[in-house]
Amino acid sequence: MSEPRSRAEALDAADPLAPLRARFVLPDGVVYLDGNSLGALPAAVPEAVAQAVHAEWGRDLIGSWNGNGWWTLPTRVGDRIGSLVGAAAGQVMCGDSTSIQLFQALVGLCRLRPERRTLVTDGANFPTDQYLAESVARLLGLELVRVSPPDLASVLDPEVALVSFSAVDYRTGELWDAPAITAAVHDAGALMLWDLAHVAGAVPFALDELAADAAVGCSYKYLNGGPGAPAWIYLPRRHQESLDLPLTGWQGAAAPFELAPSYAPAAGVERGRIGTPPVLSLRALEAALSAFDGVSIADLRAKSLALTGLVLDHAAALGLEAVTPREPERRGSQVSLRLPHAYEVTQALIARGVVGDFRAPDLLRLGFAPLYLRFVDVWDAMDALRDVLATQSWRDPSYAVRAAVT
Amino acid sequence: MSEPRSRAEALDAADPLAPLRARFVLPDGVVYLDGNSLGALPAAVPEAVAQAVHAEWGRDLIGSWNGNGWWTLPTRVGDRIGSLVGAAAGQVMCGDSTSIQLFQALVGLCRLRPERRTLVTDGANFPTDQYLAESVARLLGLELVRVSPPDLASVLDPEVALVSFSAVDYRTGELWDAPAITAAVHDAGALMLWDLAHVAGAVPFALDELAADAAVGCSYKYLNGGPGAPAWIYLPRRHQESLDLPLTGWQGAAAPFELAPSYAPAAGVERGRIGTPPVLSLRALEAALSAFDGVSIADLRAKSLALTGLVLDHAAALGLEAVTPREPERRGSQVSLRLPHAYEVTQALIARGVVGDFRAPDLLRLGFAPLYLRFVDVWDAMDALRDVLATQSWRDPSYAVRAAVT
Repeated sequence: MSEPRSRAEALDAADPLAPLRARFVLPDGVVYLDGNSLGALPAAVPEAVAQAVHAEWGRDLIGSWNGNGWWTLPTRVGDRIGSLVGAAAGQVMCGDSTSIQLFQALVGLCRLRPERRTLVTDGANFPTDQYLAESVARLLGLELVRVSPPDLASVLDPEVALVSFSAVDYRTGELWDAPAITAAVHDAGALMLWDLAHVAGAVPFALDELAADAAVGCSYKYLNGGPGAPAWIYLPRRHQESLDLPLTGWQGAAAPFELAPSYAPAAGVERGRIGTPPVLSLRALEAALSAFDGVSIADLRAKSLALTGLVLDHAAALGLEAVTPREPERRGSQVSLRLPHAYEVTQALIARGVVGDFRAPDLLRLGFAPLYLRFVDVWDAMDALRDVLATQSWRDPSYAVRAAVT
Repeated sequence: MSEPRSRAEALDAADPLAPLRARFVLPDGVVYLDGNSLGALPAAVPEAVAQAVHAEWGRDLIGSWNGNGWWTLPTRVGDRIGSLVGAAAGQVMCGDSTSIQLFQALVGLCRLRPERRTLVTDGANFPTDQYLAESVARLLGLELVRVSPPDLASVLDPEVALVSFSAVDYRTGELWDAPAITAAVHDAGALMLWDLAHVAGAVPFALDELAADAAVGCSYKYLNGGPGAPAWIYLPRRHQESLDLPLTGWQGAAAPFELAPSYAPAAGVERGRIGTPPVLSLRALEAALSAFDGVSIADLRAKSLALTGLVLDHAAALGLEAVTPREPERRGSQVSLRLPHAYEVTQALIARGVVGDFRAPDLLRLGFAPLYLRFVDVWDAMDALRDVLATQSWRDPSYAVRAAVT
């Protein structure tokens, strides 16, 4: 390596966020660079989950809906997530999956522009975003147009009802210019939906300030909420009373316990509730979010950029092609490297305890969760990568093939 | 009471299912008759959840999707649930909430009868069933007709695409004649969707034999899967390849890891997957279902009917009005009593450790989970009810008002 490991050690010694790593349980011998797929286990989770199982479910049973606050979990957790993406309280609801929340937001927002017949998404958007956009376009009789965010101007005409983009490209790690895009969409009289799956917990975002029309995100990446942790939806206050959402579950009704036969939506963000949420998973997520207590997103962002910047330095020194932009303002919290045998290299790294993931056809994707990663993790990962490439150890058939899961 | 407690004790002593109670953790001093709202904690759950948190999430991290079988949880759990409701393997998918699964099934089935313009539901159906039917009717441009199951013939004309009923009325506990209803619907050329929320785990059902066109259910009532446990959907094999479902999440795509930009549904029941499911809640549910191992649904049904039959005997002796039918073949696993001050009486019972629930405007609802309830529980509950009514202790203002949650 072009720099000695001691330099990374010195960066860790000087890092004011270094103590946050103790808020996580991390396996020995692993450099975990897949927190953008499944975040590591926060140390506060096991006890919270055990309490939810034993005391709340086992002992207090049905009384826990009120007595132990299960009923208010979706908004309590939602408010905490909102604080990490620039949303004031009372605008984020937590529950269901990102796919479901996308469906809610897509239909709800398109119904606010009933005279416009075009829905725009990114042809490189995460598949679920594109699939739900296809489904909604068909249900509502809209035309679906795919465009890369930089080319948005070419399709923004008076027919566009809604633009749905992810703020960070999940493959390349490119961070789009959300303020400029949102402003351009609004100038065209359309609405803007952001998917913040690769933002929340690692990259600052200003949902209220941008006047985004809705946002969704998952909670199992940089928010560390656990496998399949409930997703979230941001419904800004100014739209809440006019939003006409399609997934009319009983918990989102105006008076859910009156059990009226016809649906009338609740006031405020409560109309974002759908059915009964998975409480055990929500309690895990709630505890996980305590890992952010007292931490500023600006500090997390600074560390994230320092980590990924160091990766890019090493990658350049190794002569590797990074598809992630070099400019900090265009970078999420990951680095993706283009390699001719990216799949095999990813597997060879995993065999050495460096866990990243592969994205077809040729990307090695390395995610950097700034709450728990160290500069020495970057050094060790890049040293392992150098070694794998130098020895071509990925040609060893013992590294064969288990598909990684997003 | 008209009969001594010793007779209930004798019934317990002779009950071959009595040992199953040891498969649950139940709080001391509580007679829990709300298992039709939230089932009790199965003893196998805490360890399974702790393992999912510590070893699977904390230690094995992203590798658990394959290495610890997270990916196959929705179908593994689905098959186990299917075995309790008469569905052969490969037809039940577990995940999301009942509300979401209703939306999937309603849209998917209506699209199989595109030339028909009427959707039928029960005006006394659980609100979420009615709300989602309203939403789907609007999205697809259908007319929504509400009818009580006994009056179905009056609305079954060639315009009816789909009939959506719950097999047990959640308020009265009445069990409808599913074979006759399904046959009548099919004779009219329409399709039949059953909601088995109050059936699965307590009442036998024959989904395959009836040729039901789809079914949904929740897992937190008689299946004891925990608060907000993932729901399930039954998509019979003969419809799977033609079902065109609206919630097109990436996990239901034909090749989910190829991450193609356009949706093509997976083969078989896999197309019932939507987004990433809440794994911790699914692991709890999976462990919970082991409480049914080696237990026949017929035996559970016999015990359930014996328990509710005894309640009806006592209620008659106390001169109380039961809205639940006396005939076993018309009865689910609950008894609902109509009382002038049902809300206050419910609260007074809860204060004495007898936990049932209230359904507006005038029903005391008592659910009987045959896996863990005893005949002495029936006796104790009815004795407490007799005492509450005799002393009018519900008039004591200290019993005041906390809303019960379904």
